[in-house]
Amino acid sequence: MSAAASSAILGEGPLAIICGGGSLPFAVADAAQRRGRGVVLFAIEGAADAQRVTAYPHHWSRPGGFGRFCRIARNAGCRDVVFIGSLVRPTITALWPDFKTLSVLPRVIRLFRGGDDHLLSGIADIFEDEGFRLLGAHEVAPEILMPAGALGSRQPTARDHADIARGLAVLQATGPFDIGQAVVVADNRVLALEAAEGTDQMLSRLADLRASGHVHSPARVGVLVKAPKPGQDRRLDLPSIGPQTVERAARAGLAGIAVVAGSSVVAEPQKIAAAAEKAGLFVVGVDAVATV
Amino acid sequence: MSAAASSAILGEGPLAIICGGGSLPFAVADAAQRRGRGVVLFAIEGAADAQRVTAYPHHWSRPGGFGRFCRIARNAGCRDVVFIGSLVRPTITALWPDFKTLSVLPRVIRLFRGGDDHLLSGIADIFEDEGFRLLGAHEVAPEILMPAGALGSRQPTARDHADIARGLAVLQATGPFDIGQAVVVADNRVLALEAAEGTDQMLSRLADLRASGHVHSPARVGVLVKAPKPGQDRRLDLPSIGPQTVERAARAGLAGIAVVAGSSVVAEPQKIAAAAEKAGLFVVGVDAVATV
Repeated sequence: MSAAASSAILGEGPLAIICGGGSLPFAVADAAQRRGRGVVLFAIEGAADAQRVTAYPHHWSRPGGFGRFCRIARNAGCRDVVFIGSLVRPTITALWPDFKTLSVLPRVIRLFRGGDDHLLSGIADIFEDEGFRLLGAHEVAPEILMPAGALGSRQPTARDHADIARGLAVLQATGPFDIGQAVVVADNRVLALEAAEGTDQMLSRLADLRASGHVHSPARVGVLVKAPKPGQDRRLDLPSIGPQTVERAARAGLAGIAVVAGSSVVAEPQKIAAAAEKAGLFVVGVDAVATV
Repeated sequence: MSAAASSAILGEGPLAIICGGGSLPFAVADAAQRRGRGVVLFAIEGAADAQRVTAYPHHWSRPGGFGRFCRIARNAGCRDVVFIGSLVRPTITALWPDFKTLSVLPRVIRLFRGGDDHLLSGIADIFEDEGFRLLGAHEVAPEILMPAGALGSRQPTARDHADIARGLAVLQATGPFDIGQAVVVADNRVLALEAAEGTDQMLSRLADLRASGHVHSPARVGVLVKAPKPGQDRRLDLPSIGPQTVERAARAGLAGIAVVAGSSVVAEPQKIAAAAEKAGLFVVGVDAVATV
């Protein structure tokens, strides 16, 4: 492990965790605590799990909260900040309108003109200008990264491997355009490509297309493939899957899920494995360049 | 005009037009009749406009209809066949189950394993094996192709031109994967990419994303860009737009629509121009490789 990586894991002072939705924020908090590091959770209203957050030292984000975040985090001795969990795009400025008053308004507006990567790395800069060090969740809690191989007992078939390879090739082709991070390929046919709608909505659309007969490949054919975008700022937006991703993939009639190992996060691997067993799907960590 | 192109326009005997939904089949029939050529319409149940089809010599497609189509078309002296109008993918074999009994079942199944191009050019072969010549609608009625320049008075701005260029680049990158033919780019951000759902559903999704705040670029920003896929069999599946495309684009908050001139069809250019005027959108035919 490099000195920088080791410094990220051990850190200086408690870790400030800005919490979006889902289980990931708590997986990261637990991992930090297991290493003896303190945490302070900044729970985003409307996103973070209100029940689970009570188990940790926490504050709720409020309108005008960016200035407040900086004050509380500094007073708590935090230098390192992690931004983790599901978060819809407009939330950031809706939540912290003082982002707009920190003489960064023109900057934020410019950011919104680009794709997600552009927006997110710009926001990282704004945190850094306030003296914080923005880290990727995987830097403070490497155990949340997807391992190579299957979670659960099911393995992809040869046909599934071919679909995975095609999916990775599609994501590689669209990568330069800062589009989505997910694609569905069934028996060599690209059924859906994610852009602004996100993975969950893409899977729902596919379930609808199948129900209405617009897509009629046999059930249990097709793979959801997720990969990081080339050049993506991994501090803010790693691809992630959870048990509900498995359930949505099952409703969409897919055979399984493939994510690039080591560059996607899994909040609750045991729950994912259990959901995969129950639904009869495979969930597998693969190399970024798949071999057919 | 080449001898082959001229032969397609003038043809041998009446033109058999297999009619899907929308206005395009009638635009093609009218164009053929204006040249003094007879037409026989084969209206697809559940797709073709039952009212408008009565103005032409016509037959309705029925289950078991592929054999019946061959008989009627041969008896009417038709050799040339055009397949035109909106048609959902599964309709073809649902409509003509005898496609499956013509000892082509393994072939059709293989076709469904590939993308749309693969399926459609395979179906063209099946027609040709029965002694018909499958032509593109644009070969018998070149006037249905989108012209270069604007329909209506609105013109794209410099920003719109940049979005168009990016959209064309995205479609060029995804072309090899036989995906969709349409993309929406707003202020340099790719908001949606079409795959199995089709252009109409993609635009509806975008309207929903805007209504729910997931996409919050200002209204009247963004362009729907449509282009033919590289290597696409144009006899069966040219990109097309109609007045309803303009209305859907307006509901999705876009500034306009750009289609590659000469390789997309427009059923009713006057109605499209009127719809564009009413909605305040531009509709423009562009070069396949856009200049910013």
